Amino acid sequence: MVCPRFLGHFFRPWKFDLCTETENSPIPQPVLARLLKAAHHAPSVGFMQPWDFVLIDSLEVRQQVLASFNEENAKAAENYTGERQQTYRSLKLQGITESPMNLCITCDRSRGGTHVLGRNSIVEMDLFSTCLAVQNLWLAARAEGIGVGWVSIIDQDRLSDILQLPEQVYPLAYLCLGYVSEFLDQPELQAKGWRERLPLEELVHGNGWGKPLEPVGLSERLKNS
Amino acid sequence: MVCPRFLGHFFRPWKFDLCTETENSPIPQPVLARLLKAAHHAPSVGFMQPWDFVLIDSLEVRQQVLASFNEENAKAAENYTGERQQTYRSLKLQGITESPMNLCITCDRSRGGTHVLGRNSIVEMDLFSTCLAVQNLWLAARAEGIGVGWVSIIDQDRLSDILQLPEQVYPLAYLCLGYVSEFLDQPELQAKGWRERLPLEELVHGNGWGKPLEPVGLSERLKNS
Repeated sequence: MVCPRFLGHFFRPWKFDLCTETENSPIPQPVLARLLKAAHHAPSVGFMQPWDFVLIDSLEVRQQVLASFNEENAKAAENYTGERQQTYRSLKLQGITESPMNLCITCDRSRGGTHVLGRNSIVEMDLFSTCLAVQNLWLAARAEGIGVGWVSIIDQDRLSDILQLPEQVYPLAYLCLGYVSEFLDQPELQAKGWRERLPLEELVHGNGWGKPLEPVGLSERLKNS
Repeated sequence: MVCPRFLGHFFRPWKFDLCTETENSPIPQPVLARLLKAAHHAPSVGFMQPWDFVLIDSLEVRQQVLASFNEENAKAAENYTGERQQTYRSLKLQGITESPMNLCITCDRSRGGTHVLGRNSIVEMDLFSTCLAVQNLWLAARAEGIGVGWVSIIDQDRLSDILQLPEQVYPLAYLCLGYVSEFLDQPELQAKGWRERLPLEELVHGNGWGKPLEPVGLSERLKNS
């Protein structure tokens, strides 16, 4: 039997395999509540809490989102040629209708009024805060045996229309959630030879860009990370 | 004795108290290595890994950063009047020179070449990925008893100059790290009456903005989160 494996959203370090009954099972409400609570307890600039959570289990809505993905993905594939394009087309980059639950985490850029504490110099701090909520949810999901894929190949204006978001609300992260049979020990893009993990010791600088760390012991410790 | 408590960076849910010898102690290399590894293992769009880590323990460099904070903070304070401004001025919003270690997590927007898988429709995915690394580090630090403060009241152009960042490298997060004596059970801005935690059940929508969740049981579970 060919297992219709939901392989390799680029953004997930694990296999998201929905070919068995267990893996297609919905996420129970108590679990979903824990994930949302973890996200809601992320730090945010000025305690702004700019996020909202749109849970999407309607197949009709997900099919509309999938149509947007397909259009965007066709455009993205044009960036590659030859063998690289073949590899690209072999990657399964979304699980919108296969996963039992989609979740759009949004950022309300008007929340907290005209001035939010700590958002004077860097206005994007609300978006960055929302990302922290995404990662809290991602890690909480991992602890529950739930795989998460971030679908970034999507037209956000169209997504906003589909989800009827108000104008000031930005659809930051469109996530697919589902139970997985296995978590990979390395990102799929690494396993498939698309891109290697960078040597951490080359990404760490001391007191200024390109300057060596002092003492040097830390660099040694970072090798093979 | 008046304890010079490093109270309340707006972005931290805990007290960051550096008034005892223990709390001023530097972060040992093995601990620092674990934090950086946690950050480096965050998911990233197209496995782009756009982050670098500039560790700053030089007092001279930190004093330059502090000068930028002071200027930006003076501007930010002008957004408030009366009692609110008094409260604002009473908040200690940075620990740049008090904490033993500062860390700037950057985003190299050119990493991975002209096209990065999954970054076709939403070009900001590299910045969002870097935020995921920030939150991984934040949570790893929490597990090590280390408090983290995100200093967002800062001029990023000036910070780039101070850290000699290349033009394509964006200084996404400027963090202060140090051991703390205690983690608060609620964000300081909540404790000080600046802003309340929002009711989670009002932030969750079903299949579209403003639509109720079905079944309704989940809403009940989210109350008092």
